[in-house]
Parts: sequence; C-alpha cells; structure tokens
Amino acid sequence: MKIYLECIPCFLRQALEASKMATRDPARRELAVREVLRRLGKISFRDKTPPEIGYVVHRVVRKVTGNPDPYKKVKDEFNRKAQRMYPSLKDKVEKSRHRLLTATKIAIAGNIIDFGPTSKFDLESTIREVLSSGFTIDHFKLFEKALEKAETVAYLGDNAGEIVFDRVLLEELEGKQITFVVKGGPHINDATVADAKFAGIHEIAEIKTVSNGEPGTGPRRNSKRFISWLKTRDVVISKGQGNYESLSEADANIFFLLRVKCPMIARDIGAPVGSTVVKSVKR
Amino acid sequence: MKIYLECIPCFLRQALEASKMATRDPARRELAVREVLRRLGKISFRDKTPPEIGYVVHRVVRKVTGNPDPYKKVKDEFNRKAQRMYPSLKDKVEKSRHRLLTATKIAIAGNIIDFGPTSKFDLESTIREVLSSGFTIDHFKLFEKALEKAETVAYLGDNAGEIVFDRVLLEELEGKQITFVVKGGPHINDATVADAKFAGIHEIAEIKTVSNGEPGTGPRRNSKRFISWLKTRDVVISKGQGNYESLSEADANIFFLLRVKCPMIARDIGAPVGSTVVKSVKR
Repeated sequence: MKIYLECIPCFLRQALEASKMATRDPARRELAVREVLRRLGKISFRDKTPPEIGYVVHRVVRKVTGNPDPYKKVKDEFNRKAQRMYPSLKDKVEKSRHRLLTATKIAIAGNIIDFGPTSKFDLESTIREVLSSGFTIDHFKLFEKALEKAETVAYLGDNAGEIVFDRVLLEELEGKQITFVVKGGPHINDATVADAKFAGIHEIAEIKTVSNGEPGTGPRRNSKRFISWLKTRDVVISKGQGNYESLSEADANIFFLLRVKCPMIARDIGAPVGSTVVKSVKR
Repeated sequence: MKIYLECIPCFLRQALEASKMATRDPARRELAVREVLRRLGKISFRDKTPPEIGYVVHRVVRKVTGNPDPYKKVKDEFNRKAQRMYPSLKDKVEKSRHRLLTATKIAIAGNIIDFGPTSKFDLESTIREVLSSGFTIDHFKLFEKALEKAETVAYLGDNAGEIVFDRVLLEELEGKQITFVVKGGPHINDATVADAKFAGIHEIAEIKTVSNGEPGTGPRRNSKRFISWLKTRDVVISKGQGNYESLSEADANIFFLLRVKCPMIARDIGAPVGSTVVKSVKR
C-alpha cells in the first residue's frame, strides 16, 4: 500500500506520543518532534509504504530522546494483561463449535492492542464484539482450506500483548512447521523476540526477525529477499495494518488478519474503520 | 496562551485540509504539506501563541498552492447558510425572557462554524444544545453589568457565517459605539471585511482589521498597538479560540465568548471540549 498525504499529520501525532513516552523532558520532546518535522520535510514519499516512513519517525524519536524503547512500559503492561487473559481465551476455543474460527477471531481481536493508530482502545469490549460478529471481508473458508493442506506456515506477528492472542491461533495449527516473525528491534509497540518469548511462542514456532528500520535487525518486510522466503511457505498469516501496508502487493499466499484502525487503510482494503478482516490476496 | 507541542500534529492536519481545499493537484498538495513540515522544523515555538504559528502554516499553503483563499467556498456556504437562519435566530431572541442571554448564547453557538480545530461539526444541534444549557464558565452577570455602563465596545469576530450570529448579539447593544474587528486578509475560514459586509455588520458597527499574518493587513492581534487600543474600549467581546489564544494574557476588559473545541484550550481555560464559555479576564 502506498503512502497517503493523510499519513503525515498522523506521523506527527505518533512522534509526539512516542516522545512523551520516551522522556519527561519537554525540551527533548520538542527537539524530537522538530527533528521529525525536518526529516519528513526532506524525504520523498513517492513509492514509499507508510511503515517505511514510520520507521524513520520512530528511529528519530528514539535517537533524539536517547530512549531505545519508548513503548517498553506499555509493551510489558499488555504482555502481562494478555497473559492473564490467556486461560479465558483458551476456554472460549475449547467451548466453541468451530475451534479455528474462534481462535482466528481471538487473534484478530488482539490486534486492537496497537499504539500506532491511536493510544485509546478497549480490549475487552473488542473481544466481545469480534467474537459475536462476522468478518467484514470474509475469506475465512479459503483460509481454513489453505491451512488444511499446509505443511509450512509463516505467521507475521504485529504487537506485544497481541501475540498472546496469536498463540491461541498458533496452537490450533499443531503439526505444521511454523515460523513466527517479529521485529528485530523496538518499533512502537511491535512485538520483538523478547515479547515472543514472554508469550511462549518459541516453544511452538521458530522465531525469525524482520527489520525495525535499523541496520542489522533483519531483512526489510517488503524486500525481495523476505518476499521470496514468504513464497516458500504454503500459507502466510499476516497480522495487522503494518504488515498489510508493507505486503498488500506481495506475490505470496498471504491471508491478512486485522482490525481496520485507520481511514487510509479502510479506503485501501475496502472495509470501514472498526472492521474485522480475513483477506486473501493470492494472485 | 502559549503553544503546546500537541499543536504541531494539528497544524499538519490543518495544512493537509487547507491544501485539499486549495487545489485538486496532488503534487501541489504534497509540496504544500512538505513546505509546512520544513518551515515548522525551523521556527522556534518559544513564546509563540498558536495563531502565530497558524499564520505561517496557512500562508505557506496559500503561497505554494497559488490559491489566495482556500476556504472561500466554505466561507460563502456558511455565510449563506447562517443568513438563511437569521430570521429564526432573531425570533428566538424576540420570544425569550432574557434577550441578552439568548443573543449571547446564539453568538457562541455560531462559534461552532470553525474549520480550524476540525472540519466536522453540526450547526443545528449545537444551537439547540447551547440554547438549552448553561455556560461551563459563567461570567455572564459580569458581562451584562459591564455592558450596561459601556459606551464603547470592541467586538472581535471569529469566523465567516458565525458573524451572522454575532449580528444578533450586536443588535442587542444598540446605542453603543461598536467596532467590529475582522482579519485583513484570508486565514482559514476567519471572517474578513467582505464577510462582515455580507452579514450587514458595517450598518451597525465600524469595521477594523487585524493581521492575517501577511504584511499590510492590520496590526497583530497581540501587538502593543492593538492591545492599547482595546484598553480604550469599555468592553471587549472576543469570539472564539484564536482570539483567546492571542489575548488570554492581554491587559484589557475582555470577555471571551467561545465554544471549547480543542483539548489544549480546554486545559488552558479550564473547561472541557464541547463547553460553552463566557469568561472575564479583567485584571
């Protein structure tokens, strides 16, 4: 998905929120926001996806504030919160008539734990709502069918906390060879290797990293190298907006599972803000 | 009122909205937003009021898009809309038990016609709500008393369309020497001389201009020259957020009449977003 001009004010809001999480020093916060203004003033937006610009924004904030992981506190908070919810989430799957459907809905409900689009969300009410509704874009039957025959699965995680919800879905894929992909370093509240281990994902899947925009953290999500690897997997499960923005045009067997949280993604994907989506883009 | 860092993403949103109103050319829109990023990256925010930065933002958009008045269409639309409502607004005053109170509420209800804080508002429901509620900050009795003895009144207008609502209040001030202040050139949907004339304000008040941030359009609102003049008036009626932001610390007999539409003004003035305020700051 290409970037829209509408993303720019949103990046400034993110820069402000990240700066406030990163430091209590008002002068440092102002410096960080000002540096983001300067950098965005220079970067070409052409042929860029929103996450590519987002990486620049959050890297600048980390650098100028001197805080390598501004969202550490909220990541830990939501990891713990989600961990406490895990038994009740498992219980919902156990009691359901369609385990994979319920587990898929739970994984998508967890996608509301996202400090990018807005820092205001209600996890509990989202779970209730998602479990009791259908998908606005509904390729679930294709998803189910694809998983039946799949031996290898790549699962692109999104946020800390959310990955406990992902674990519920992963546990329904027993017997398959699963690779779970997280960021190779901090970026907003995106899940990293530490978060994946906290959620116990390393016990059921191989962990792989992609770049957070910093050198040495893994391949870029929309790089040829990474997409070539995705194509070797029978099924790719892609969680959240950032993975959609990066890979909506990638040529692999991807199922995008997400909550629509931003008007530009709503326009691009064709479902309103607040929608729950299971979208196949097999070409 | 000093600027908050929270104002920066909001200015970018304004730059985007103004650019979209100014031109259909996506390349020009991007150039304008990029130039705003660059300019804000360079300007010191210290000791600045939000309108001072806002002038820079909207001047850049006008210049880069080549459109001298991006909000012309919505200004005309709301002038006409308000003009059609004028008879029913007058009727509400005629039928009320407290004419000045009703006229004051009508003038404040009109303050919702503001394309700065957000371009989404509901004029009719705001009128109903304001007429049926009290003021969150209520210095109305002081206001009434001050007006009783006042011979000279300065009335600082805010937006096009809204000034038809102001006319309803101005007509309750018969016999006083009134000066109505508008912008000396276009800025967002702020009222200009043309709008004041459309609303017939020139028939009941002298018209005076303040700067829209461009040379030759009048004195700056927070300049010594302008505040000295305000001090020569028995009462100053100041409409809207922009006048509050510019003059909240001015040493004159000012009554601020406004709808609170932004969280930073809410924090500064001490009343939540959505409040209706009549605030005296006589020192």
